[in-house]
Amino acid sequence: MKQIYHFNEGNTTMKDLLGGKGANLAEMTQLGLPVPAGFTITTTACMQFLQQDDYFEQSLKEEVLKAIYRLETETGKSFLADSSILLVSVRSGAKFSMPGMMDTILNLGLNDKKVRDFARLTTPSFAYDCYRRLMQMFGDVVYGISKEQFDQILQKFETTFDKAPSYFSLAEQQEVIKAYKQLFDKQHKNFPQDPLEQLFTAIKAVFQSWNNERAQVYRNLHDIPFDLGTAVNVQSMVFGNSGEKSATGVAFTRNPATGEKKLFGEFLPNAQGEDVVAGIRTPQTIDKLKQLLPVAYSDFIDYAKILEDHYKDMQDIEFTIENGKLYILQTRSGKRTAQAALNIALDLVDDGTITKKEALLRITPTMVEQLIHPIFDPAELKSAKVLAKGLPASPGAASGQIVFTAERAKELHEEGKKVILVRQETSPEDIEGMVVSEAIVTSRGGMTSHAAVVARGMGTCCVAGCEELIVNETTQTVTCKGQTLIEGSTISVDGTTGTIYQAELKTVRPTDNQNLQRLLNWADKEAKLMVRANAENIQDLSAAINFGASGIGLARTEHMFFGEKRILEMRRLILAEDETSFEVALQRLLDFQQDDFYHMLQTVGEKPMVIRLLDPPMHEFLPTDPQTIQQLAKQLEKAPEQITKQIAQLHETNPMLGHRGCRLGITEARIYQMQVKAIFTSAIKLTQAGYSVKPEIMIPLVAEEKELIEVKNSLLRTIKNLFEASNVEPFPFEIGTMIELPRACMTADRLAKHADFFSFGTNDLTQMTYGFSRDDIGKFLPIYKEKGILTQDPFQTLDQAGVGKLIQTAVKKARQTNPNMMIGVCGEVGGDPNSISFFQQAGVDYVSCSAYRIPAARLACGQAALNDCRIAEIAL
Amino acid sequence: MKQIYHFNEGNTTMKDLLGGKGANLAEMTQLGLPVPAGFTITTTACMQFLQQDDYFEQSLKEEVLKAIYRLETETGKSFLADSSILLVSVRSGAKFSMPGMMDTILNLGLNDKKVRDFARLTTPSFAYDCYRRLMQMFGDVVYGISKEQFDQILQKFETTFDKAPSYFSLAEQQEVIKAYKQLFDKQHKNFPQDPLEQLFTAIKAVFQSWNNERAQVYRNLHDIPFDLGTAVNVQSMVFGNSGEKSATGVAFTRNPATGEKKLFGEFLPNAQGEDVVAGIRTPQTIDKLKQLLPVAYSDFIDYAKILEDHYKDMQDIEFTIENGKLYILQTRSGKRTAQAALNIALDLVDDGTITKKEALLRITPTMVEQLIHPIFDPAELKSAKVLAKGLPASPGAASGQIVFTAERAKELHEEGKKVILVRQETSPEDIEGMVVSEAIVTSRGGMTSHAAVVARGMGTCCVAGCEELIVNETTQTVTCKGQTLIEGSTISVDGTTGTIYQAELKTVRPTDNQNLQRLLNWADKEAKLMVRANAENIQDLSAAINFGASGIGLARTEHMFFGEKRILEMRRLILAEDETSFEVALQRLLDFQQDDFYHMLQTVGEKPMVIRLLDPPMHEFLPTDPQTIQQLAKQLEKAPEQITKQIAQLHETNPMLGHRGCRLGITEARIYQMQVKAIFTSAIKLTQAGYSVKPEIMIPLVAEEKELIEVKNSLLRTIKNLFEASNVEPFPFEIGTMIELPRACMTADRLAKHADFFSFGTNDLTQMTYGFSRDDIGKFLPIYKEKGILTQDPFQTLDQAGVGKLIQTAVKKARQTNPNMMIGVCGEVGGDPNSISFFQQAGVDYVSCSAYRIPAARLACGQAALNDCRIAEIAL
Repeated sequence: MKQIYHFNEGNTTMKDLLGGKGANLAEMTQLGLPVPAGFTITTTACMQFLQQDDYFEQSLKEEVLKAIYRLETETGKSFLADSSILLVSVRSGAKFSMPGMMDTILNLGLNDKKVRDFARLTTPSFAYDCYRRLMQMFGDVVYGISKEQFDQILQKFETTFDKAPSYFSLAEQQEVIKAYKQLFDKQHKNFPQDPLEQLFTAIKAVFQSWNNERAQVYRNLHDIPFDLGTAVNVQSMVFGNSGEKSATGVAFTRNPATGEKKLFGEFLPNAQGEDVVAGIRTPQTIDKLKQLLPVAYSDFIDYAKILEDHYKDMQDIEFTIENGKLYILQTRSGKRTAQAALNIALDLVDDGTITKKEALLRITPTMVEQLIHPIFDPAELKSAKVLAKGLPASPGAASGQIVFTAERAKELHEEGKKVILVRQETSPEDIEGMVVSEAIVTSRGGMTSHAAVVARGMGTCCVAGCEELIVNETTQTVTCKGQTLIEGSTISVDGTTGTIYQAELKTVRPTDNQNLQRLLNWADKEAKLMVRANAENIQDLSAAINFGASGIGLARTEHMFFGEKRILEMRRLILAEDETSFEVALQRLLDFQQDDFYHMLQTVGEKPMVIRLLDPPMHEFLPTDPQTIQQLAKQLEKAPEQITKQIAQLHETNPMLGHRGCRLGITEARIYQMQVKAIFTSAIKLTQAGYSVKPEIMIPLVAEEKELIEVKNSLLRTIKNLFEASNVEPFPFEIGTMIELPRACMTADRLAKHADFFSFGTNDLTQMTYGFSRDDIGKFLPIYKEKGILTQDPFQTLDQAGVGKLIQTAVKKARQTNPNMMIGVCGEVGGDPNSISFFQQAGVDYVSCSAYRIPAARLACGQAALNDCRIAEIAL
Repeated sequence: MKQIYHFNEGNTTMKDLLGGKGANLAEMTQLGLPVPAGFTITTTACMQFLQQDDYFEQSLKEEVLKAIYRLETETGKSFLADSSILLVSVRSGAKFSMPGMMDTILNLGLNDKKVRDFARLTTPSFAYDCYRRLMQMFGDVVYGISKEQFDQILQKFETTFDKAPSYFSLAEQQEVIKAYKQLFDKQHKNFPQDPLEQLFTAIKAVFQSWNNERAQVYRNLHDIPFDLGTAVNVQSMVFGNSGEKSATGVAFTRNPATGEKKLFGEFLPNAQGEDVVAGIRTPQTIDKLKQLLPVAYSDFIDYAKILEDHYKDMQDIEFTIENGKLYILQTRSGKRTAQAALNIALDLVDDGTITKKEALLRITPTMVEQLIHPIFDPAELKSAKVLAKGLPASPGAASGQIVFTAERAKELHEEGKKVILVRQETSPEDIEGMVVSEAIVTSRGGMTSHAAVVARGMGTCCVAGCEELIVNETTQTVTCKGQTLIEGSTISVDGTTGTIYQAELKTVRPTDNQNLQRLLNWADKEAKLMVRANAENIQDLSAAINFGASGIGLARTEHMFFGEKRILEMRRLILAEDETSFEVALQRLLDFQQDDFYHMLQTVGEKPMVIRLLDPPMHEFLPTDPQTIQQLAKQLEKAPEQITKQIAQLHETNPMLGHRGCRLGITEARIYQMQVKAIFTSAIKLTQAGYSVKPEIMIPLVAEEKELIEVKNSLLRTIKNLFEASNVEPFPFEIGTMIELPRACMTADRLAKHADFFSFGTNDLTQMTYGFSRDDIGKFLPIYKEKGILTQDPFQTLDQAGVGKLIQTAVKKARQTNPNMMIGVCGEVGGDPNSISFFQQAGVDYVSCSAYRIPAARLACGQAALNDCRIAEIAL
């Protein structure tokens, strides 16, 4: 089997085999772009190597040798001999772009002898700069000798010789090399002098880097499979560091933060490779190149257009200019902010490049969530103290406590604190700390620096290159305008404007994104599933309607009992020892609820609103601390001991499996009757005032047909009486049930006979199906994830094999006895895009989620319909 | 539709329509036995009456009239006219015998005028005795005027006239009648003088009595459907109270306590109707009749044989002798003790009357449970103080506290106390108190008294007619040989010998019932399901093997950690803060467990033993009271505050859904490894000593395939190492999993790939499926049962529609990927006869239950196979 493809043998469709980078290098070669010659070792070769316990097959060695010979022929240079020296880069390249995650070695092929010849052919400072870089990268990637150790040596010589490395003499350069070698020796490592040994060792190291820790973290974060492997690209070097007419840079064909159709990039003159991305020197903007190297700039403009037109998407292009000649080293679909992604997609639709459906599939639900990311409350912004301004590298707004290392970020995050990672620059080692941070701030690096790229990918807000900040990582302080902040100080970061505030600021949600509205309207047209909201307070209900909810899928009534006055009446009711106190409390709660429902129904209007009757066990409303009990005793004119005794009587060993839901409605019918009375009295009043309303009453925790019949009949009697007393023409209403117990799923055909609608409560259903208490899984879930026993939290993403199977069974059974009933999902996973395809397949009518997840869910529903995602049929 | 059948129109197959009593009266009439003429009003007529809100249809009235005319013709007497007076009895008779539960009225047709004529035709004392009884029964049954009020009146006259009622003069008799009438008046009721009105009213009352409270309790207790209704038998009276040559009695064709083939019965001379059953006068044994009325006796012997041969079963026959002539009033299959049922069935097989299979179906699993009822420990009996001796009315042995009323029995039972009901005599009103009592003692009444019959039916031990006891229900005391006991005093009752002890005695289980062995061996031959035991201590394991378990289905290992020394080490392990303490504790627990398993495996031998690894959450092993914590702190040399803190950290909101089962085995693999090491080290030792062993390791609470793989692989490594180190030829063993979570059921096909066996844990599965915590359902389950929402406790009898459906699904899926795997049921319902048919149908291989339920389960398995019970197919 062919394990190596030269760039002129492949194309962009071969990403599985050649990785993204290799496939695009091949595609560009085929397009006739100036790509330095090279070849790609396949991902298959990588996986074979890893699966054979890192055994490098003889056949692969031979194929590499042949490819090197061919490269020598193509370039007219020699890798093995000493004249007309061919150096190569060795770079990883997986199917999915993983920026900074994998390893790169440049200038490979140099050794003590060849560097002298190379110095003669070019200049000593350039040749030794290359050699030094090779040794450093090789040491780092292959042997794990940290970059910092090499940097320290170099800095020492800079101090001793009192000049920058590019001005070092030959002798001085050789001293650096000597010191680098001593570093290798000290670590008992050998820098190989044989170019072929360098090459094979580097290839192995790239292969192995597929499994390094930061690669694993990134894959976990982005759900990238572990068995893809990485390809290895071996490419003849061109040198951006070969003098003043050389440069290296990165540019996007559009602005990756806003989507604006304007070249957006940066370059460093006389620099090599990763200098731009690593953010070590702050680069110049791409338009400066026009003055400096006008021919190369003009060529770049042309090639950038060719590439964007060819790929029909914004491109992220790496280039190098060697003595005035432009080379393209890489292109890929550029990472972008959610807003940019949206704007670009709509622009491309508008200019006819892509269709609306294509545009829909280019935006992820996560991006939509970012688009409604919080911004700082404009009211607070006016008076907030500005600390500094930097580059608006990734939009969003967040407050938190300063931390200076990834480790501290993780530690404080685990303690439940909100942290903001502040660093000179970030590196791939920081990835875990970045994941848990609310925001990222760097004092160095540009819009394409590591921090900026990763933050945009994660949707975390980021201000980069904020040079006003003096970050001292040793003393763990940041100084700005003479003021010093330490770990734990609170700041607020606005990634959209690049502003950092010295205060904790309130955030609000933006709601008027016209482009987003356009996209979501397209999504709604495609969607088979509707989206409702889980909301009960007026603010959330309004937001839900604004975000395009087709109704309310879950309004929880118990939340209304927690206000100060209400909780007292609720407690009076629970602790009542005679009929009078019970009825007094009940009447007062009725008054409260009536007022609540009036405003809720008024807000939601003619759209349906599912109102769930009281669900939690009674003891959840009672106090536990002696002081509150004392106070309550006074308020209720009871003995504290009596209250303590009653609380003890209500105690449950497993409250989740206890006296709650419809079980309460059956043992004490008056509470549900009060709630329904409150709902319908309000609804009747609103109807009389000319409003339309559509209440849907949901009975929770039904396990058995007779429970449903009992509660439903009791409620219907109450409703009938209210209508009769009112002389209002009865408006349409429904009575349905929550399906949240395995038994309800298995007997759904029976339940469906008595229910106008079903709504799956996936939270409780997941708890019962797994036997997991959400309150207690913290003790083993982290270990389960670590061991790969659970790859996803089943409370966030539907467990299709277990809970999903129960849902499929229930829908099928329900449709047997009640074919047209409305069936929804109102648990946490209702708003999860990964689960939405499954619900569509299962035959559900709508999903319901928190108001702020509605836009993402609408998109996901549109996409699910477009993909018509085939769910692996799990046989019953 | 025909609503009335005369006795010569029906037969014994018509029990649905005519009730058991009516069908048998018809059958006996057809056989030519001397049955007084009469007719039966059908159960259909009863249900129609009840469903039409007690409306007595005109058509039924007309049919009754016609039947009465025909009866007048048949008997040559007149019901309506005053000469040659025809009196009738009106008696209920449902399909299933419900002794004492329904109502009877005798002597119907008498009134003020006719009684005088009747007195002329017979004797005044006899005629008025009949009239008085009629008024009393009529008042009681129709108007609910209590018998006691009539009795008080009668007793007053007895005192005033200083003689027994049968010696009252005509005038005196009339005074009694007058007083009775005043009692009616006082209650604003009217005793009708019109015989037809009496008849119709009585028929209605019998119809209505189908729904009286004690009938409902009885039906609930015996699972008799509520929609059967009762028939009404109207029969011409014959008089056992018409003089010295008259008598009434009840006899069994065999001894209902032992099964001995010998007439067993009692009679009262010159008495009527319910006198014998009610136990008011202590009757004479049937053999005394031989001297008194030899012709009638000899006739009875003949008829008894005819009836037993005809019905192929022991008969319970009611008879009346009127002036020396024998009449048979009723026959039915006699209620009997379990031992008698068994002995009779085997006798009937031995003499060729019935087949082995018929015999198997005649014994209920409940009877088998009674056969292994406890007896008092013979060692204690020698020194126990005997209080009194009475009739051995229902076998068994029990200790408890004396109560004197059914109400107190219920109250104390609800407080968790064991009670023994002590009464002069019991009546149907006492039924609820009898149900909750450990034993029943009466000072009056014989072997066929209400107390005796009901106790035998329920399998409750009973000593009847213990005349040494003077029970004073007013003062709530019982006096015996000068000593007085009050409520709460402890006694022990041996229903097999009739002895009452004044002490609390230990009970033991009998094991050597040869007849039972025979029957169960027949059952095993028929059975499709095997029976295993849930047992872990040596005593229970031995008992299980003796009772014929085919293996151990569930040995719980956590029970072994609760001994004083063990719990300390377990606590040391849980609270260990360093590796050393953990390992020390683990090693000590290993030593304990090794010893445990050695003896367990030795006891069970070559039969398979399923050993479940540690299941409960760790906090269950920790103390909660401050004193024990203090003590533990000293033992472990830790600060009490530290222990309190650790306990708090281990606290769980819903322990049932928490960190337990295989979740423990995954987060801390060493505990399961220790257990498996203990099991296999012991097993290897036993193998070396020449024993056969077959351990089956069961992993609890598996929800996900990868959990099973993870734990299984870890255990297999440990086992492999032990075998390698031992040089023993590996013996067969299995590793399987408990199926006790809905997710395990829904993914059983995946789990089955990695499991050698499955065992359904129906307790937890029921908890999760319903979302019921067994610890907490007490708060609503009683109300659910009262409202008929749940008719059975799903933890006692399998919920077929929900939990059962999950089990069916799981078995089907499991067999898809692992067709030959062994599948068992080890939860509480595993031993429930009602559930066993379902498990057979579902394709389960064995059920497992506590050792003492094994015999009953073996029978149930045999019966299930014979019945090949069709389970209503619940569509998926």
